[in-house]
Amino acid sequence: MKQPAIMKELNALFNPRSVAVVGATDNRGKWGFSTFRSVNTSFQGDIYPVNQRAKTVFDRQAFARVTDIPGPVDLAVIVVPHDAVLPVMKDCVQKGAKAAVIISAGFQETGEKGRKLQDQVLAEARKGGLRFVGPNCMGTWSASCNLNAFMAPMPVMDGPLAFVTQGGNVGGSILRSANEKGVGFREYVSCGAAADIQIEDYIEYFGNDPSVRVILAYIEGLTDGRRFVEKVSAITKNKPVIAMKSGTTLAGSRAAMSHSGALAGSDAAYDAAFEAAGVIRAQTIGEFLDTAIGFLTQPLPAGDNVAILTGGGSYGVLCADACEASGLNVVELPEHVIEELNQHLPDRWSHGNPVDPAGDRDFGYYLQIPELLLPIEYVDTLLFMGFGGFSQLGPDFIASGFTVGPMDQAPPTEEEFMNMVDKILADIIISWLKKYNKPVLTTTFGEMSMHLEHGIYHYASPERAAMVLANLARYRKYLDKIGVTSKPDYDPFRICLL
Amino acid sequence: MKQPAIMKELNALFNPRSVAVVGATDNRGKWGFSTFRSVNTSFQGDIYPVNQRAKTVFDRQAFARVTDIPGPVDLAVIVVPHDAVLPVMKDCVQKGAKAAVIISAGFQETGEKGRKLQDQVLAEARKGGLRFVGPNCMGTWSASCNLNAFMAPMPVMDGPLAFVTQGGNVGGSILRSANEKGVGFREYVSCGAAADIQIEDYIEYFGNDPSVRVILAYIEGLTDGRRFVEKVSAITKNKPVIAMKSGTTLAGSRAAMSHSGALAGSDAAYDAAFEAAGVIRAQTIGEFLDTAIGFLTQPLPAGDNVAILTGGGSYGVLCADACEASGLNVVELPEHVIEELNQHLPDRWSHGNPVDPAGDRDFGYYLQIPELLLPIEYVDTLLFMGFGGFSQLGPDFIASGFTVGPMDQAPPTEEEFMNMVDKILADIIISWLKKYNKPVLTTTFGEMSMHLEHGIYHYASPERAAMVLANLARYRKYLDKIGVTSKPDYDPFRICLL
Repeated sequence: MKQPAIMKELNALFNPRSVAVVGATDNRGKWGFSTFRSVNTSFQGDIYPVNQRAKTVFDRQAFARVTDIPGPVDLAVIVVPHDAVLPVMKDCVQKGAKAAVIISAGFQETGEKGRKLQDQVLAEARKGGLRFVGPNCMGTWSASCNLNAFMAPMPVMDGPLAFVTQGGNVGGSILRSANEKGVGFREYVSCGAAADIQIEDYIEYFGNDPSVRVILAYIEGLTDGRRFVEKVSAITKNKPVIAMKSGTTLAGSRAAMSHSGALAGSDAAYDAAFEAAGVIRAQTIGEFLDTAIGFLTQPLPAGDNVAILTGGGSYGVLCADACEASGLNVVELPEHVIEELNQHLPDRWSHGNPVDPAGDRDFGYYLQIPELLLPIEYVDTLLFMGFGGFSQLGPDFIASGFTVGPMDQAPPTEEEFMNMVDKILADIIISWLKKYNKPVLTTTFGEMSMHLEHGIYHYASPERAAMVLANLARYRKYLDKIGVTSKPDYDPFRICLL
Repeated sequence: MKQPAIMKELNALFNPRSVAVVGATDNRGKWGFSTFRSVNTSFQGDIYPVNQRAKTVFDRQAFARVTDIPGPVDLAVIVVPHDAVLPVMKDCVQKGAKAAVIISAGFQETGEKGRKLQDQVLAEARKGGLRFVGPNCMGTWSASCNLNAFMAPMPVMDGPLAFVTQGGNVGGSILRSANEKGVGFREYVSCGAAADIQIEDYIEYFGNDPSVRVILAYIEGLTDGRRFVEKVSAITKNKPVIAMKSGTTLAGSRAAMSHSGALAGSDAAYDAAFEAAGVIRAQTIGEFLDTAIGFLTQPLPAGDNVAILTGGGSYGVLCADACEASGLNVVELPEHVIEELNQHLPDRWSHGNPVDPAGDRDFGYYLQIPELLLPIEYVDTLLFMGFGGFSQLGPDFIASGFTVGPMDQAPPTEEEFMNMVDKILADIIISWLKKYNKPVLTTTFGEMSMHLEHGIYHYASPERAAMVLANLARYRKYLDKIGVTSKPDYDPFRICLL
């Protein structure tokens, strides 16, 4: 299959062999300091600091101009005052650089004069076939060459996500949260004003990078909605794209205008565009990242029918509320399953969905109940409440006589329990995922901060789990609508972290 | 002022000198094991295990019946099979116990037979003037006597909150989340079926305990809405009460019925009751606890007008969206403030509200901007974005040349920075709170897990901060409506953790 042109055009951006940082400096008070530090502590290829006055920067030989650099320059990271960007771009083109990241701000977001300057920079880049990120961005990350070109330190690691963000700080928030949760990025772009490369171009690139499994986009405003739908719908046939669109209120759209210079536009128009393109829309930072992790770690549900297994009645009530509010169905259970449960659970069990053993202490049996619920043909998903982060409950739990597994076995020591329990539970959950190919979403025992571990991610709350599940179901419906069906032996959308 | 009768009636529940645990056992597989362990590892008064067969439990002398105990028994914690509860209650009454916590389940939630048994237990207790919690509950906590009578280990510490929950597991979730955030409880009651003491009775008790500052209630269904409104509206004049009501959907209300046996009732009716009683309603576990922390750490806003200061443009856009969606006003700034900011910020700053310095690196000046925004008479609240958990950004931040304070001072060492920065920021924020008596809500740099530190709590996201602020404003409006005005020199609703 022929690769789209964008893969070649952005190759120097994501796979450069050499990087020049224009504006690199030893002056700690400048962005050129922190930007150069990012590149200098990550990238293993050739690095050239460019500074008009300094002989060295970070003890590396510095060059007054890009054109003074002896070797070839694939990528230029530009962090100089806005009025110096045009001559730097001219040098980059003359040098034969193929890509640039313009961190400098002071262009379209400041008004007519800035917009004009931006157009001149763009015209210059076009002359040399140079593609650029920004201006007014916070930099880029590419795991393939371990290049961190962020203007400020933001934690990032390699992983199956890719992300283009029109907001550097929202992007940084997602990076920090993702890092805390233990999930990484193959590529990350703070696209800023997106004068040259458009959001849909990045999505097209990510879509064609086989190491990317799920794509994220934070959008304040698109330049060409039609082009976005066209480009992105070609990607969503194969890979989920999750978008967060801000500026949905008057106050927010005003703020967006002064921030990225983007026209926030009608929210309904964006909803329609996302729907046409098969893009899943998230409303908050938390939902955004949790949905991405949902796509990474779960198969897609065949439908909206949910069975709930809960370690506590009230937690089941919240979960049932959250499911119904998210458009999912908390289905009735077949009579034979009820009867089977009657055999093993105390009389006071809930006798329905959610299944609540109502204080039965036999966790060994509790862990067998999913094998009754998942085989029910019309049950599409199991929500398994409250057993994530078991070990976070602390040694008190095992000291209080609880165990996982048959009650007649000797209880583990505290240390064994703490070391093993999350792994044991993860292994059981993964065995269900493999056996039934249906989503099994789990939650913590209560809004605890969780990270991906042993291939399993536990959602912080029932609402979050239900919302993520509804997003997975939405994508499944889109695929059904456009006629994409996954084969039983290989599903491009299924679990990738196991 | 005369104390209401409830303070005496529930005194033995929250301040017992002696506790009997009926059903205490050395058998690790039983709830009587974990319940007795909770009491045994916390309470410093007299503890009596009651067990029909054992001579000792946890190496303490055990008694076959409550009536066999030599000393007086103030409180009995009952964790025996449901059909043994009635004779135990008879013994408790005969012994002269004044309070009981019935953990045992199998009463009204199981149907007519269980309801009848429950009524018999209640009649027996009434004979002896004994008040009881439950049945079908997970136990209680009282900081005044350090009594933890939980059936399963849940972390809890002393603090300014009090909580009654109709869901033991939702309660446990809140306890764990609160513990992670570093906030504690003066009293905590899992009320279960609430056969005797009603939710509004606990709220009345908490309302009259001067060490309680904010009251939380998780409700599945009330028995007598009118009584609730009457009792609770007497409390909300002095103290905020935050309620979470579940069973709002058909699936949820069905689950509630099988769980607590409560009639979830019409959601609109609950909304009306909460409004009449001045109760603030939270929708999720996260909003529930975050709102409580908001009441603990902030003065009430005089109105809905918000100024936003953001370290990043996109974060400001999200915040503006969140404020407007929560019914708050992102107001325009007066000309003189804009002009003042023009003097100090780069041309590309946002020139409005949200105030976004657009990448200005002078954090010293950034920290002076609130002193321009808070004095604006019509600004009721400052939302200060993205500077919570500064130290969580890691040593990379200071290594990248950033500092807090004037840029011309020597930067702190990494260690100094990490140790000091959160404290420095907290001190500055507290100084603004004291000087202006207006709420200053802060957020982290992005959905990080935060805890109360140095008297300051940073919200995980702009949406969460806006939602909490809207809840504070809602309570202020209720107080205005009923004619409660706070005096400038003493405000019972203001900050208590500083």
